[in-house]
Amino acid sequence: MRLAVIGVGLIGGSFALALKQAGQVSHVVGVGRSRRNLELARERGIIDSIADDAASAARAADIVLVAAPVAQFAAIFAALNESAALITDGGSTKRDVIAAARHALGKRIAQFVPAHPVAGAEKSGAAAASAELFRNRRVVLTPLPENAAADVHKVQALWEATGARITRLLPEEHDAVLAAVSHLPHLLAFALVHDIASRKNAEQLFSYAAGGFRDFTRIASSHPEMWRDICIANRDRILDELKRYQAKLDGLEKLLDAGDGDALETLFAEARDARNQWLKSST
Amino acid sequence: MRLAVIGVGLIGGSFALALKQAGQVSHVVGVGRSRRNLELARERGIIDSIADDAASAARAADIVLVAAPVAQFAAIFAALNESAALITDGGSTKRDVIAAARHALGKRIAQFVPAHPVAGAEKSGAAAASAELFRNRRVVLTPLPENAAADVHKVQALWEATGARITRLLPEEHDAVLAAVSHLPHLLAFALVHDIASRKNAEQLFSYAAGGFRDFTRIASSHPEMWRDICIANRDRILDELKRYQAKLDGLEKLLDAGDGDALETLFAEARDARNQWLKSST
Repeated sequence: MRLAVIGVGLIGGSFALALKQAGQVSHVVGVGRSRRNLELARERGIIDSIADDAASAARAADIVLVAAPVAQFAAIFAALNESAALITDGGSTKRDVIAAARHALGKRIAQFVPAHPVAGAEKSGAAAASAELFRNRRVVLTPLPENAAADVHKVQALWEATGARITRLLPEEHDAVLAAVSHLPHLLAFALVHDIASRKNAEQLFSYAAGGFRDFTRIASSHPEMWRDICIANRDRILDELKRYQAKLDGLEKLLDAGDGDALETLFAEARDARNQWLKSST
Repeated sequence: MRLAVIGVGLIGGSFALALKQAGQVSHVVGVGRSRRNLELARERGIIDSIADDAASAARAADIVLVAAPVAQFAAIFAALNESAALITDGGSTKRDVIAAARHALGKRIAQFVPAHPVAGAEKSGAAAASAELFRNRRVVLTPLPENAAADVHKVQALWEATGARITRLLPEEHDAVLAAVSHLPHLLAFALVHDIASRKNAEQLFSYAAGGFRDFTRIASSHPEMWRDICIANRDRILDELKRYQAKLDGLEKLLDAGDGDALETLFAEARDARNQWLKSST
């Protein structure tokens, strides 16, 4: 099986490596905006050849993975509309990606089985790719009504071969859920670091930041363009979450203002218990 | 040298273990609210004996570490006001701790050299104590005008013996800096987890939370009583930070509303660069 990867970054590169390791693909062709990144990917054995554009890469492929920042999907799908290959993706949002695919692929929309590996990291590029990235991570499929069951199974089997656990959601559900547990936290972390960095005494403040701050802000080292695209693509849901969170902070502010230690302690204890329960059930 | 530890938790227990390992103390007596925790501390060799109250523990000690949630400091200092021992502490806030010490110790205030090891963890109790907790971590001293230089040096040497790096701040500076880089992030993490846990579809949401969420919310597993006390003790500074952060989120909301991808990407890139710069300079 020949795989074409459009965007050989953390997700695309890891997909290629995992499928090679699983013996699922014999040849991987890579396409991307950075020649240097593609050369690196070839040196590391992530891809076997480099194509000049998505159309030519897809022509000889059985399966295509689109793993670019989501604002590029419209142009990429347009380049794929003469390919007979099965297409899946690694986009972090699904409603916009599916709309772009419908628009560009037209009658070929049945060839596209949307996916989102919930396995990000704050590192990016082929240099960060790993055959183990998806192991025991969740990959969400949001199949389309037009997909043939056999194609969905084929795509699911490929993602399973990377070691991932597969679940299915409606595209709308996916975008709402991820806005709450991924997109909002990223915004919050970016906002905190940006605010501290913008102060006169930023250096002093950073010098007293410890392990809690480091972990809280890890996701603020994420890929700016990727997160710009996610924010624009899913902004209605993210705005819902942001407003909800601001209301929560207003509530906390009132408790602080009132010096209501009991209510604060109850809230902290409930949060801690919920988190510890989640950790227990997720391992 | 005989050490009395009032509150044998993560901080108090780790201080005792580190000083034993460094050969600085020959005997450690522990005091605390939980008999079971004290027994565990004795079994593990963190303390050598258990005292019934702070007054009797301090009577035979050369040095006393107060390492309880800060709301208890007033009562603890009151119990120490007949001791000739040098006193230091592990409180996360300094203005309130110093005010409590002045009130309770009166003329003996010179015996108290305030400290804050910036080395928290989301685990608590003697079971979490480690001789290595403070290694290469920052300990902030906020000496008082009344302290003799020799006493400050003695306390500093003890904290240095735990492997910590010592800096000094004014109590007011300390509380403002820590509100920004520690107290606010804790509140933000507690708020996010609490909000998600309070929804009808909490279980579904948690099931899609991944590594980014786990790290972002790690500090939401922190000790609720300790954080209640910090919030009350430092609430003016924390409220300043919370309001500032809410204004930052208002700005982000406007960018999202306007679909201003360029401005979002710039903000994300600046935050990422600032964080990566901090990581580089802090290692």
